[in-house]
Amino acid sequence: MTPEAVLARFREYMVGPTRFMTLLSCFELGVIDALRERPGMTAADLGARVGVRPDAVEQLLFLLVKETFVAYDEGSRTYTLDALAHVAERDLRRALTYLNMIKVVALRQLFHLTESARTGTLVGLKELYGAEGTLYGAVADHPDLRDSWATLMDAVTANIDPWFFANIDLPPGANVLDLAGNTGLGAIDAHRLKPVPGLRVTTFDLPEKQDECLRNFKDHGLEQQCSFIGGDVFDGVPTGFDTVLIKHFLDMFDKRNVVRILAEVGRSLEPGGQVCVLVPVYPENVQDADNYNVDFFPAFFLGCTMGEGGPQKLSTYVSWLEECGFTVTRAVTRDAADLPPDVIPVPAVLCATKSA
Amino acid sequence: MTPEAVLARFREYMVGPTRFMTLLSCFELGVIDALRERPGMTAADLGARVGVRPDAVEQLLFLLVKETFVAYDEGSRTYTLDALAHVAERDLRRALTYLNMIKVVALRQLFHLTESARTGTLVGLKELYGAEGTLYGAVADHPDLRDSWATLMDAVTANIDPWFFANIDLPPGANVLDLAGNTGLGAIDAHRLKPVPGLRVTTFDLPEKQDECLRNFKDHGLEQQCSFIGGDVFDGVPTGFDTVLIKHFLDMFDKRNVVRILAEVGRSLEPGGQVCVLVPVYPENVQDADNYNVDFFPAFFLGCTMGEGGPQKLSTYVSWLEECGFTVTRAVTRDAADLPPDVIPVPAVLCATKSA
Repeated sequence: MTPEAVLARFREYMVGPTRFMTLLSCFELGVIDALRERPGMTAADLGARVGVRPDAVEQLLFLLVKETFVAYDEGSRTYTLDALAHVAERDLRRALTYLNMIKVVALRQLFHLTESARTGTLVGLKELYGAEGTLYGAVADHPDLRDSWATLMDAVTANIDPWFFANIDLPPGANVLDLAGNTGLGAIDAHRLKPVPGLRVTTFDLPEKQDECLRNFKDHGLEQQCSFIGGDVFDGVPTGFDTVLIKHFLDMFDKRNVVRILAEVGRSLEPGGQVCVLVPVYPENVQDADNYNVDFFPAFFLGCTMGEGGPQKLSTYVSWLEECGFTVTRAVTRDAADLPPDVIPVPAVLCATKSA
Repeated sequence: MTPEAVLARFREYMVGPTRFMTLLSCFELGVIDALRERPGMTAADLGARVGVRPDAVEQLLFLLVKETFVAYDEGSRTYTLDALAHVAERDLRRALTYLNMIKVVALRQLFHLTESARTGTLVGLKELYGAEGTLYGAVADHPDLRDSWATLMDAVTANIDPWFFANIDLPPGANVLDLAGNTGLGAIDAHRLKPVPGLRVTTFDLPEKQDECLRNFKDHGLEQQCSFIGGDVFDGVPTGFDTVLIKHFLDMFDKRNVVRILAEVGRSLEPGGQVCVLVPVYPENVQDADNYNVDFFPAFFLGCTMGEGGPQKLSTYVSWLEECGFTVTRAVTRDAADLPPDVIPVPAVLCATKSA
């Protein structure tokens, strides 16, 4: 890479924040919806329709015209949806959910990334919300964070759980613990997507999740097959289960804490008991240009959600499981070609049994 | 552009903020300088050197390894500068000045772009700094804004003024008004770069700039050739000058205000008097992928500095000058190939004479 290419790449980075917000603002202002409903409007028409000065509409749409998302006709000075017209509503909604989450949970907070990395705390959350601790604590107190975060996570879980459960084995009569299982969605998905005879799933999470979790089980008619145990994984993992699920969790921690969690899980299992992990992974070759995990997650975990953590390569998780006394029986990364092209996280499943 | 390509492009936009801040944080934390001084450090070495947990160093460097800015050796687990090693110190400093300005003046403020565009006010500046009005007012009260903004603007002016003065004609004995000339740098540059015999330059700006401006003239031994007039361009432009310079100014306003400024300048001039404009311009073909002005300026002006404005195409400025009673005698856009590859603004010079 020449020095000129490095500097040109820096320019790409410089326009990252403005590009991000210009695109999202065109949606937030209603400009895109207006053009979908009535193609061929001028900046003045659009401005009147969405309540924005025509000059500002024109400025923001320059980028969308550059991208050929929107077409501009010089003669009539009118705008029409171009490439954006052909994107399916469902795909657009998924992408906007992600854009919105990044705006609310990350954009401003990232300003403080350097101090957050230095201190291992979320300086941005403290500055903006007066929140101590992690995003997962702050979402309980701040509806704006919760709405944008929970909406995304529900969508992510709905998209990934079918693949996860298709890639793990549960024997008949399996007695499963869903570690950090939040309010029971994973337990419910297990019954829906892996309905082995006699399956029992217990959600393990902080005690304050109990009421909503039990309500969810009841709403799904699963109060006989599912239960809840309150506790903190760092204080120990309940015993008596033959399979422990760890979904969307290990990537939140530095190695020290990942090893603590895996060691606690190991202690809770009998030899031959299994752990099934779902986690986003970095590609083995970090220079794989099609994989965007390293473009997103380090800053997101260090600066916006945890003050530590971040995904690892699949091979790193394999070696950490082995360090903690497990024998890895499956390690599969999802084929990125199976994911919609706007989706950042590339997940993997790792299954392992406790060595004798 | 296929729907898949649109969604893939959205993903590029999604990682814009995290990429931006991950790169800048590696510099801010001192990781890059540390690697320059001592190549071949592990994450643990680096962490100890810069005071950051090794896990966090490793996470942040994944992206720089992906970009081949930094090399990672799997065997020794050590990092070395790769492409970054060959970028000249001066180039890197210029790019970092820009990155820092975008962080301080734009990153958090952009969160409020939608509301700023809707109201024509800078909601982000209000939220973050309690500032009413524009960035140019806020820099007076907030050293962090001023430092990052003024440092950049001085660098930009130093880079652009030689090209600007090489592209305008001043006759011997020219009596020049530098409109919105701030604290006199343009007047000083005129004498340095366009030293026609008998040149006089008067800086016109808000009265509070007077003391610093006159001090600057004295420091450069130009108190006889330069002077200052305090006032607001929207209340009228002083008369008696044969050339008016308008540098880095018209892009700050919507058309309505640009036309007001040009009309005031026209009223101040005798027929045959000239105006010389320096302004960043959008490419005539907005889809010119090598031009990053539309990727940056709309959101920057609407959301971070003015609540209105943004550059136009050269042809638009030509037609606005003609609307205001000028005959355009020169309209030249700088060849982007003459600019370093990290520099976003592509400037143009427009000269025009007041029609009889």
